[in-house]
Amino acid sequence: MLLAKVYVTLKDSVVDVQGETIKDATHSMGYKNVLDVRMGKYFEIKFDKRTDDFENDIDSICDDLLANPNIESYRYEIVEDN
Amino acid sequence: MLLAKVYVTLKDSVVDVQGETIKDATHSMGYKNVLDVRMGKYFEIKFDKRTDDFENDIDSICDDLLANPNIESYRYEIVEDN
Repeated sequence: MLLAKVYVTLKDSVVDVQGETIKDATHSMGYKNVLDVRMGKYFEIKFDKRTDDFENDIDSICDDLLANPNIESYRYEIVEDN
Repeated sequence: MLLAKVYVTLKDSVVDVQGETIKDATHSMGYKNVLDVRMGKYFEIKFDKRTDDFENDIDSICDDLLANPNIESYRYEIVEDN
């Protein structure tokens, strides 16, 4: 089996309101050394086998389903998962 | 600077409704080789310097703020970010 680990993050130009809120909360907790927090999504997709256009398939799933290409970018890594 | 990359995922025993929905959607798109999808959260936390109890600090932030320990688990890695 194959496991695709997909990371979807807001583009740098997009204000991350949830991340800002979490940063403020860490400061309230006393962790003044926190400079920035960015929040994203993480997906683990299991495939039973590699297809001919495997990377293209993952790109399509990311573009059409997991990420909003207007405001988010994604990256992924593929690992063997037996 | 230091960057903590935190991955928060549902425990294996917890049904991932969003992941199931995404799996069904991939099948509708024709990707029949998708066996399973799990959805989680991903955080990037920037710190200006390492504190004495740095790993403990990150554990506290994860336990108290980022993850619900009843249903979620987390892991993190720390990288230099200059």
